[in-house]
Amino acid sequence: MSEAPDAKPSYPWRMEDLVSLCARRGLIFPSSEIYGGINGFWDYGPLGVELKNNLKALWWQRVVRERDDVEGLDSSIICHPRTWEASGHVEHFSDPMVDCRACKKRFRADQLDDAGKCSAREGSSQHDFTPARNFNLMLKTFVGASEDAAAVAWLRAETCQAIFNDFKRVKDASRQKIPFGIAQIGKAFRNEINPRNFTFRSREFEQAELEFFIHPSEREKWFAHWMDERVRFHRDLGLQPDRLRVKHHDTLAHYAKAGADIEFLFPFGWQEIEGIHDRGDWDLSRHSEFSGKDLAITDEETKEHYLPMVIETSVGVDRTCLAVLCNGYEEQKLDDGETRTVLHLHPAVAPIKVAVLPLSKKLAEPAQKLERSLRRRWNTFYDEAGNIGRRYRRQDEVGTPFCVTYDFESETDGQVTVRERDAMTQVRLPIDGVRRWLEERLEVAA
Amino acid sequence: MSEAPDAKPSYPWRMEDLVSLCARRGLIFPSSEIYGGINGFWDYGPLGVELKNNLKALWWQRVVRERDDVEGLDSSIICHPRTWEASGHVEHFSDPMVDCRACKKRFRADQLDDAGKCSAREGSSQHDFTPARNFNLMLKTFVGASEDAAAVAWLRAETCQAIFNDFKRVKDASRQKIPFGIAQIGKAFRNEINPRNFTFRSREFEQAELEFFIHPSEREKWFAHWMDERVRFHRDLGLQPDRLRVKHHDTLAHYAKAGADIEFLFPFGWQEIEGIHDRGDWDLSRHSEFSGKDLAITDEETKEHYLPMVIETSVGVDRTCLAVLCNGYEEQKLDDGETRTVLHLHPAVAPIKVAVLPLSKKLAEPAQKLERSLRRRWNTFYDEAGNIGRRYRRQDEVGTPFCVTYDFESETDGQVTVRERDAMTQVRLPIDGVRRWLEERLEVAA
Repeated sequence: MSEAPDAKPSYPWRMEDLVSLCARRGLIFPSSEIYGGINGFWDYGPLGVELKNNLKALWWQRVVRERDDVEGLDSSIICHPRTWEASGHVEHFSDPMVDCRACKKRFRADQLDDAGKCSAREGSSQHDFTPARNFNLMLKTFVGASEDAAAVAWLRAETCQAIFNDFKRVKDASRQKIPFGIAQIGKAFRNEINPRNFTFRSREFEQAELEFFIHPSEREKWFAHWMDERVRFHRDLGLQPDRLRVKHHDTLAHYAKAGADIEFLFPFGWQEIEGIHDRGDWDLSRHSEFSGKDLAITDEETKEHYLPMVIETSVGVDRTCLAVLCNGYEEQKLDDGETRTVLHLHPAVAPIKVAVLPLSKKLAEPAQKLERSLRRRWNTFYDEAGNIGRRYRRQDEVGTPFCVTYDFESETDGQVTVRERDAMTQVRLPIDGVRRWLEERLEVAA
Repeated sequence: MSEAPDAKPSYPWRMEDLVSLCARRGLIFPSSEIYGGINGFWDYGPLGVELKNNLKALWWQRVVRERDDVEGLDSSIICHPRTWEASGHVEHFSDPMVDCRACKKRFRADQLDDAGKCSAREGSSQHDFTPARNFNLMLKTFVGASEDAAAVAWLRAETCQAIFNDFKRVKDASRQKIPFGIAQIGKAFRNEINPRNFTFRSREFEQAELEFFIHPSEREKWFAHWMDERVRFHRDLGLQPDRLRVKHHDTLAHYAKAGADIEFLFPFGWQEIEGIHDRGDWDLSRHSEFSGKDLAITDEETKEHYLPMVIETSVGVDRTCLAVLCNGYEEQKLDDGETRTVLHLHPAVAPIKVAVLPLSKKLAEPAQKLERSLRRRWNTFYDEAGNIGRRYRRQDEVGTPFCVTYDFESETDGQVTVRERDAMTQVRLPIDGVRRWLEERLEVAA
């Protein structure tokens, strides 16, 4: 973990280069490009969806499946609007905004610099601002057959509130006892005034959240446990230690006892990729109050009746994808004077695990046969177009850890060449040993 | 495939029994239950999310990963609003509605029977209907810092439109040539006036859609190919042949050449779980027109410049989950006079693949050790509470295909008992052979 200062990092490449690679290779690109895009919304292409799904699967494996004390959930994006009154979002989840009477545009009151960019200023008029008013960041919609106030609903601003709604149901159905957690992955929406930094701050994003319910006497212990677990997760993903740090919050919400962010050093500076919070009993007490349902539990042994406290871990899936991409991107000078672009991705998140390349199109049949035998296990890729060096480069820049080359000798010696992405080392292996060899390198824990 | 008539099926149980099991065991339950629920929204609990994820993974494996000619996508739920003008949804995706001037409620003009249930009728007043007006079924929201018309956006009513938006980008990034397809899984939203039949007709639901782009001369061939593929998928899931049928559409949209639904016989009748449509070049031509971008492609060999035609397969993920549950649910009379509830789920979609049960709590340690060794590969469950028969029943009713019992003899003979859910047969296996035995039964293609 770094003690690094707040200075900008010295990434030897520009963010535009990564953004361009992501679009060109179908990792991530703007939503609705043919209509000029829509600010704050992004699509994951053929390789991006594999990267993102791999990251989500790793989190699910680590946080849910490998533990006895965490249950999964997949709740609806729209839930009962009272949920957001109980959570405080309807009242407080807002930014102060001002409207300009002259140009009719709206600006954040604390970012009036942006108003200088307003086109109205280019003419002769001056801004004429209204007093600041709060503008809710939740996206509003209307459910049911009318558009009046009774039908207002919200797109969830975070996935965790449904976990509190469902706490009792999940606890009873799973026969869990305190301490235990409920985890879910899903989309959330925030009407950010100023989406920026590629996918880092967008209006539609994916969260992976865990709410871990504990006895009030064990807050420090579980906060420390989850902090360790989550830092380990990001390290295991291969994020460089000097680009990771934990920043403890100086100020806390009145109900919170501890809070910290795991930050990653992006090309645009240190930014949060995950938050870990001791939320006390704030959430369950508020939902008890607003729903009229007692969400306290009774300890079977001690008969103590109490509201569990909550330790939350909340990771931004898109942000972590972006961290993985920034962390892995390199424009590498080679000995022969050439430059190769390479994504050093952990094999567990790499969109393609192995590419199979026949040295010549004449070898397509046996090479395809090998590729098909690997396909049921991993996401594979078959490529017979272009010279072999160019095909290696194409795989390097999307982070494929291994390329298997089938050449003319393979026909007689029954062996193939496996080339590793980072060191570009090559080994010769019997064809029927390739799967096992790959298993040993791809199935390790992230 | 059934030639069955339209009559209601003779399911020997009531839908409420399945709904009750789903809530009690944490498969599926209403969203926001503590607030009285919200009509048309459902949450998937700890076992439900595994079932649904398994089904999605199977589809992805079959439709995307095992094919060279299909690419994946994960687009944003909110896209540029012009998308829905091009698709025709803004203009046409609506139901005719009437308002009652007396009771202020809204009803579907073609379902005025429902008005009889209106509470206003219980008083003395009579309905006083306005003329019918069209009511759009898309959920509306507002993106950006104002709430005026310019900021209106829609929650997608189907996942496929983003596929058309991204067609060129994905084609170029993936270097695919016609014919090829783009597939995605994701949430969609429709403001259904009357959500019903458990999760069958809800307002938030998940689709798995494929748009397969072809040369105009190959429409029949590819329609037939995808029809075969998709019927095979549902059969392979274990849906009973006499509960599956293909219903060809009598009437088609003006641009369509063929269309059919794959229907499943639910307890509430034959209903669509998947649609397969020849959409012609309608979508790409509309998006070309509305975006001003030419979405036609040029064949590299023939130099022909043309708009590809589209064969679409669109499966409701929630509907297929529900079909799988209805298909598998049984209240089975046993020889000893007892009744057991069992979910006959295909192992590939079963939420828990294997439960490990020590015969006594004294055997917890070695049993847990075995369970942990299986956990990295499959979703497993460890249960030491209650008598062994009761523990088997708990696994039966959530569809766990195999239970492994560790007994006192296991300590000396190094063997365990594996019990199969459907036939309730038991075999004795060496502990270190369990994994391999399970692999042979769980890793087969769905």
